[in-house]
Amino acid sequence: MTSRDETDELTLKFDENGLIAAIAQDADTKEVLMLAWMNEEALNKTIETGQAHYWSRSRSELWHKGATSGAVQIVKEMRIDCDQDAVLLLIDQQGGGACHTGRPSCFYRIIDSDRKLAFKS
Amino acid sequence: MTSRDETDELTLKFDENGLIAAIAQDADTKEVLMLAWMNEEALNKTIETGQAHYWSRSRSELWHKGATSGAVQIVKEMRIDCDQDAVLLLIDQQGGGACHTGRPSCFYRIIDSDRKLAFKS
Repeated sequence: MTSRDETDELTLKFDENGLIAAIAQDADTKEVLMLAWMNEEALNKTIETGQAHYWSRSRSELWHKGATSGAVQIVKEMRIDCDQDAVLLLIDQQGGGACHTGRPSCFYRIIDSDRKLAFKS
Repeated sequence: MTSRDETDELTLKFDENGLIAAIAQDADTKEVLMLAWMNEEALNKTIETGQAHYWSRSRSELWHKGATSGAVQIVKEMRIDCDQDAVLLLIDQQGGGACHTGRPSCFYRIIDSDRKLAFKS
């Protein structure tokens, strides 16, 4: 175990691109909705505003989730993992679904044992 | 939307290190237990054996979770996200906790509004 495991100080471990993984989970249903990425600015904005902000790797810009669509994510609780390179957001999803396809969750397909994908919603 | 979103073919998008993120969630309690990484071999082994395999970035080796400790993860369902760069494992955690600290989940600390960490277990 390292000091990051047992400290009460936030000592984030960003990757070589300055990012940490962020899991968004529905605070009520506990469904995992999406996995996205945060840089330090996105993390700070999320803490300051109480709404999820990510770093868009495809657009290379700060991404206030739902700012244009209304599908913002209200952060009820924010957790950090043992080695401080991943965060878990317990959120209330506003507006439409969390996924850009319009579905509630990005994880809408099950990998079968034959490696085919089965749609669950 | 891209073809990756709506296909029933597994067309994984690995990152520049050949990895995808893997979220392990307790199939019963829905608690998010950990975030780890998979390369293609780890993903294949997970599908073939029904037990979670990851790629250890710190040790640079295939990691059969719990192989020595007994804390294996039995995979009940495996999902892929819209753009196929993250998987979600719904698992039964055997043995001790999922976290190397012995806790059930790696996400045992809450980030407070003043950026201090509060231990929840």
